[in-house]
Amino acid sequence: MHHEQRQRAHDLLRQHNLNRALFAHPETITWLTGFAPFVELGQSPFIAGPSLVWYDSGHFTLIVLDSQADLARDFAADPDATLLTYDGYTIVQPIRAVASMTGILHDLLAASKGSGSVGLEQDMLTARQLHALQTALNTPAITPIDGWLKPLRMVKTAEELVKIRRSFELADIGYPVVREAVRPGAREIDVWAALDSAIQQAAGQRIPLGNDCVVSTRANNIGGLPLNHHIHPGDSLIVDISAIHQGYWSDGCRTFYATDPTPDQIQRHRFIQDALDYAISLVKPGVKTNNIDAQVRAFIERGGYPVYPHHTGHGIGVSGHEEPRIVPYNEVILEAGMVILLEPGTYIPGQAACRLEDGLLVTTDGAEILSHTSRNLE
Amino acid sequence: MHHEQRQRAHDLLRQHNLNRALFAHPETITWLTGFAPFVELGQSPFIAGPSLVWYDSGHFTLIVLDSQADLARDFAADPDATLLTYDGYTIVQPIRAVASMTGILHDLLAASKGSGSVGLEQDMLTARQLHALQTALNTPAITPIDGWLKPLRMVKTAEELVKIRRSFELADIGYPVVREAVRPGAREIDVWAALDSAIQQAAGQRIPLGNDCVVSTRANNIGGLPLNHHIHPGDSLIVDISAIHQGYWSDGCRTFYATDPTPDQIQRHRFIQDALDYAISLVKPGVKTNNIDAQVRAFIERGGYPVYPHHTGHGIGVSGHEEPRIVPYNEVILEAGMVILLEPGTYIPGQAACRLEDGLLVTTDGAEILSHTSRNLE
Repeated sequence: MHHEQRQRAHDLLRQHNLNRALFAHPETITWLTGFAPFVELGQSPFIAGPSLVWYDSGHFTLIVLDSQADLARDFAADPDATLLTYDGYTIVQPIRAVASMTGILHDLLAASKGSGSVGLEQDMLTARQLHALQTALNTPAITPIDGWLKPLRMVKTAEELVKIRRSFELADIGYPVVREAVRPGAREIDVWAALDSAIQQAAGQRIPLGNDCVVSTRANNIGGLPLNHHIHPGDSLIVDISAIHQGYWSDGCRTFYATDPTPDQIQRHRFIQDALDYAISLVKPGVKTNNIDAQVRAFIERGGYPVYPHHTGHGIGVSGHEEPRIVPYNEVILEAGMVILLEPGTYIPGQAACRLEDGLLVTTDGAEILSHTSRNLE
Repeated sequence: MHHEQRQRAHDLLRQHNLNRALFAHPETITWLTGFAPFVELGQSPFIAGPSLVWYDSGHFTLIVLDSQADLARDFAADPDATLLTYDGYTIVQPIRAVASMTGILHDLLAASKGSGSVGLEQDMLTARQLHALQTALNTPAITPIDGWLKPLRMVKTAEELVKIRRSFELADIGYPVVREAVRPGAREIDVWAALDSAIQQAAGQRIPLGNDCVVSTRANNIGGLPLNHHIHPGDSLIVDISAIHQGYWSDGCRTFYATDPTPDQIQRHRFIQDALDYAISLVKPGVKTNNIDAQVRAFIERGGYPVYPHHTGHGIGVSGHEEPRIVPYNEVILEAGMVILLEPGTYIPGQAACRLEDGLLVTTDGAEILSHTSRNLE
């Protein structure tokens, strides 16, 4: 599982003459191993900081909490991979997860066959984990490698695309349910509960879900969590759904209307539809992301609508926002196999809002649309 | 907000002659400040590690991601409190959250008025945050303080009890919905989706929810996330609900029956009801937690049922499992104001399972039950 990701990481480290590295960012860990822990309740009281991956001369070792071992089963079956677990929950003594994790890390590193500087993701590594490394390796030379894998994550593997397509399918289940639920008298949270139920039931398991469910009359009508706000006749509602399947995200957005859309709403919706169609038409290998960003913003401006204050789009994978970001500064060039979102919108605070967002797989000559929900006004 | 918690922390640090301390555990941060970030999607790509609280000569400064500042509004209004934010999402340059967070931390610490050893929570502090501290304070003497606040968290403040009572109310909304949803042909995930919707709609907002929803015919029928398992005639189902309101947890468990309970199921259920009643009768100030643990286990054993392999209970608050743990080794003595769970159960893998769990506020002479759902067979 995720062997190709490890091969890419291995090749990169070799290019930099690093034969040892410790990875500690949750996104990195999922990308390298496929390990995707349950996240919906925040940090477990039995966890000892981020799970870690130790790279040593071509071999990868993942360290996770004992109760999570089953989620790394497929990884552990690979010949280039080893799974180690540390002690979490017990009733026979006080919880000693941190001591257990750092002890295992220490012993693993002390047995290292490699030499020279150690590549280290330091952004999320804990002070305790750092101390174990320094002790085991006698304060080695460190090469900071935070962010190194981000460019390698942009082009998705076949295995990742299976997971991502499934995430988009799950999100697509939500939109028809929303269409039924959006009506005067309902609240944002009622709409959310309906789509949440439908997606969980279709998946046959709990699925972490984002992002936005807000009526246009909110002061900030760009996005936000669903609240007790009632939907009134004439309101529009932005519903932006991310589903996370096996650690892989989808994303997308549609705009809904509580009653028959007004001429203004129709005009705005059709214009944003055109903007999204236009944005999608720009996608193909070789294009700079900030060119897409600039062209879509210019399209909105030419139409006489307020230009959205957010990104034009972003990459997606083990994180909801990753490279390539479709933003003004970014000069990353699109390649086949990247998965991006494009999401033109226009907002008048407290009054009107429309956003439409589609997921796209960059192909050899254009883009395959991963979101299969209609963008049309109903 | 949470002023009393800070007063307790202040008093403890003074006792140890520490006038400076850096807190970095998410549980600690919520307890000290009331700040409770959205957790249901895992770690944001814009976060720079755990939020931090810097204590300096009686004053507390909280550092959070800019987009989370609104959640710390009430804290920031207190005279002993300051809120600082670091830069997260932007479209004008690459995300530099870690540099922004550590820069703010560095400047804050470099302006420190205190002296002497610095109390430090190291278990979750990141290597980057540690580096900022070492640089700003010229590698000061460190006093590890991980876990120091745990005993102070056991007795709840009035402000905390309001939040905890609300969490128990929200969980209680789920059980009648479960009673309707548990029927042959439905699946675990259908039951879960129903209770999840009901609680969100009652709360008027998204509420993180745990824990278990499993049919008795599962090999592990003690607990687990709801899956695609169908409920058959004769099945029982353990549904264990935690709701998290403003960072504060509830917990509880009921056992449900797909069809009219069999004589065996009735007997088992009534026995576990008696076990819970007995457990609750043991709760009052002055009692050692491991005495309760031993007595409840002995009660189950005397009844001829397999004794549950888990804790008899646990404290709850900013975490789902905290002190006082009701487990064999623990000699913590109950005090008025503690909130604990008691949860006797009995399990035959793949065949039968029953658990009943109630939340209890320890009072001056006994316990107030915080779970208001009937424990009876319907």
